[in-house]
Amino acid sequence: MTKTRLEAFSDGVFAIVITLLILNIHIPEVDYAHLKEALIAIIPNLVSYVMSFIIIGVYWVAHHRNFMLISKVDSIFLWLNILLLLFVSFIPFPTYLIGQYPFRKIPLIIYGFNLIAANGTGFIMMLYIKYHPELGLGEKTLKSFKTQIPVYIGVNASYLAAILLAGTFPKISYAIYIIVLFVLVVIYQTKNIIKS
Amino acid sequence: MTKTRLEAFSDGVFAIVITLLILNIHIPEVDYAHLKEALIAIIPNLVSYVMSFIIIGVYWVAHHRNFMLISKVDSIFLWLNILLLLFVSFIPFPTYLIGQYPFRKIPLIIYGFNLIAANGTGFIMMLYIKYHPELGLGEKTLKSFKTQIPVYIGVNASYLAAILLAGTFPKISYAIYIIVLFVLVVIYQTKNIIKS
Amino acid sequence: MTKTRLEAFSDGVFAIVITLLILNIHIPEVDYAHLKEALIAIIPNLVSYVMSFIIIGVYWVAHHRNFMLISKVDSIFLWLNILLLLFVSFIPFPTYLIGQYPFRKIPLIIYGFNLIAANGTGFIMMLYIKYHPELGLGEKTLKSFKTQIPVYIGVNASYLAAILLAGTFPKISYAIYIIVLFVLVVIYQTKNIIKS
Amino acid sequence: MTKTRLEAFSDGVFAIVITLLILNIHIPEVDYAHLKEALIAIIPNLVSYVMSFIIIGVYWVAHHRNFMLISKVDSIFLWLNILLLLFVSFIPFPTYLIGQYPFRKIPLIIYGFNLIAANGTGFIMMLYIKYHPELGLGEKTLKSFKTQIPVYIGVNASYLAAILLAGTFPKISYAIYIIVLFVLVVIYQTKNIIKS
Repeated sequence: MTKTRLEAFSDGVFAIVITLLILNIHIPEVDYAHLKEALIAIIPNLVSYVMSFIIIGVYWVAHHRNFMLISKVDSIFLWLNILLLLFVSFIPFPTYLIGQYPFRKIPLIIYGFNLIAANGTGFIMMLYIKYHPELGLGEKTLKSFKTQIPVYIGVNASYLAAILLAGTFPKISYAIYIIVLFVLVVIYQTKNIIKS
Repeated sequence: MTKTRLEAFSDGVFAIVITLLILNIHIPEVDYAHLKEALIAIIPNLVSYVMSFIIIGVYWVAHHRNFMLISKVDSIFLWLNILLLLFVSFIPFPTYLIGQYPFRKIPLIIYGFNLIAANGTGFIMMLYIKYHPELGLGEKTLKSFKTQIPVYIGVNASYLAAILLAGTFPKISYAIYIIVLFVLVVIYQTKNIIKS
Repeated sequence: MTKTRLEAFSDGVFAIVITLLILNIHIPEVDYAHLKEALIAIIPNLVSYVMSFIIIGVYWVAHHRNFMLISKVDSIFLWLNILLLLFVSFIPFPTYLIGQYPFRKIPLIIYGFNLIAANGTGFIMMLYIKYHPELGLGEKTLKSFKTQIPVYIGVNASYLAAILLAGTFPKISYAIYIIVLFVLVVIYQTKNIIKS
Repeated sequence: MTKTRLEAFSDGVFAIVITLLILNIHIPEVDYAHLKEALIAIIPNLVSYVMSFIIIGVYWVAHHRNFMLISKVDSIFLWLNILLLLFVSFIPFPTYLIGQYPFRKIPLIIYGFNLIAANGTGFIMMLYIKYHPELGLGEKTLKSFKTQIPVYIGVNASYLAAILLAGTFPKISYAIYIIVLFVLVVIYQTKNIIKS
């Protein structure tokens, strides 16, 4: 099982799940006279669609960057990666929920747990590489992980806050998901990739 | 993040979205006696299916041609590319609408904005390369972009016209989408690729 | 636009459409007590699923074999290939119809026209290579095409017969689709590839 | 038809089918007040989703490992591989059934037959390589197959037991599917890949 193959398979799953998201936006079959209201009614679905599209984009970028820091994979790492893909493939489910029931407790909580599960698995993959230096690229890998650890912790802490606030302040909870994403894309991603 | 990987990921998304289009054509479950009428009723869906299939084909071809003119990508370009994929992945949505409500204002407008968003992002990607010559292939890139700029402007101007005419002359609006596509495939694409 | 890239894109579309077929098999939501009947009722859908799965497999194998006989592609060939993918991507539609209304005229006719359209486009692609020898591999290409032409003609003639018999002898029509497939897989494909 | 291409096509199908699974989890459109019950009601669907996700992951890993043991493919092997993909692509169907009707006879039986069909085809592919040593890598291939044969037999015997127990002890039947998977992932896969 070469690293390249696992990466190509993961890429396939990322590309499929990011494109499948659109299938979850259902337009009720209404007369044209009511189309406008029907479309307005699904705006929350469109917002959650865009949000999850970009989140999966972020995961894909992060996945690649981390794969560039390792030289080979072993079986445990392979299964951790399949676990990561499981959580990423699951994203359309809470995306649909959060679109159907925006600003409601349960979908916001499920969304948060899904993202924490994906991030957490990514984090464990990093730790696994750290304790199996034969899979990494030495100093470069360790250094890069060091700068990423606070980001992982910060993101997951924010998601945890979103989960805790989902019941009492659902709009703040929702906003946290968007702000984290914005921060990840604009500030962190940009900076890191350009540097490398 | 190498150029090759971004291109492969984009290819995956293009291939998936072009193939998913067929899933949006629903045949109502009717007795066989009424199948003929049911099929006639979905002819507009079939037309919009073919139209969007070819549009995505055009985007895919254009995407490749432009990637052949650059030597590497940076982080901003990467995210512009993900934004482009977002707009391309969205095409099944207005395709379904335009199939369900052909010659109606709202679907024709949404379709137009979707295509302008995709084209506009493609245009911004070209500008970005222009002002970051370290990503391009020098003269060849600039020259190629020069011949493409009028095409981008012409296509987007046509789509804008289609949007403006959607309310009063919906059939002309619809026709514009088809004519632009025809022109792009038969005249422009053919000529340019053969030359290269 | 390199040949490799067009082939990879086509592969993606073939893989997606062959896997999407399963999504068209809907099990009505019934009590467990009626599940057996519900499953028996969808046997025709399962049969058409298997049939189309193998047909797309045959197309994929044929596509590759022919791509091994050419050295490069031009723009016309590229668009012929996209047209081929359009017809291949459309197969889930008549597959669903033929599953819902087995042994009925209209689905059998639409299925036949879909397959003829795909085969016909493949045939035109071969002719195009023949008259543009700069894209082929010389003698080898011509010789291989020579042995394929009777197959294309035979297959399309059979499909035409299936279309013509769809109204009066639908079961014979259905049988023709299966027999052609069987012949293609067992006899023709096996022989040709082993030789190469 | 090179081995690489068949492998890439197979990878595509594995990646698509593993990602499509999520589309079969339908949340009934209920008021938010009833969302909690609706979500609890689909827990069996989520369990079967995770189970099939991991099973397809196992198949994908096994497919690769075996492809690393052969040097080329012929036409029969190619069609055996397409047959394998047919059975793998079919998995979403019994996965949906087992989610809708957990601990019921018919879904448990269909699931078992589907997995046996896939495993059986994989087994036949191995036998085919054994009797066509020109496709293998000599000693290494034979030795690896030898250690795999008991696993194939054990897995299929377990699935057969699950089928036979589906009517009288459905929960044991269900448990067998999960235990086999657990054993495959944790013990067998881990051990074998790490060694190689």
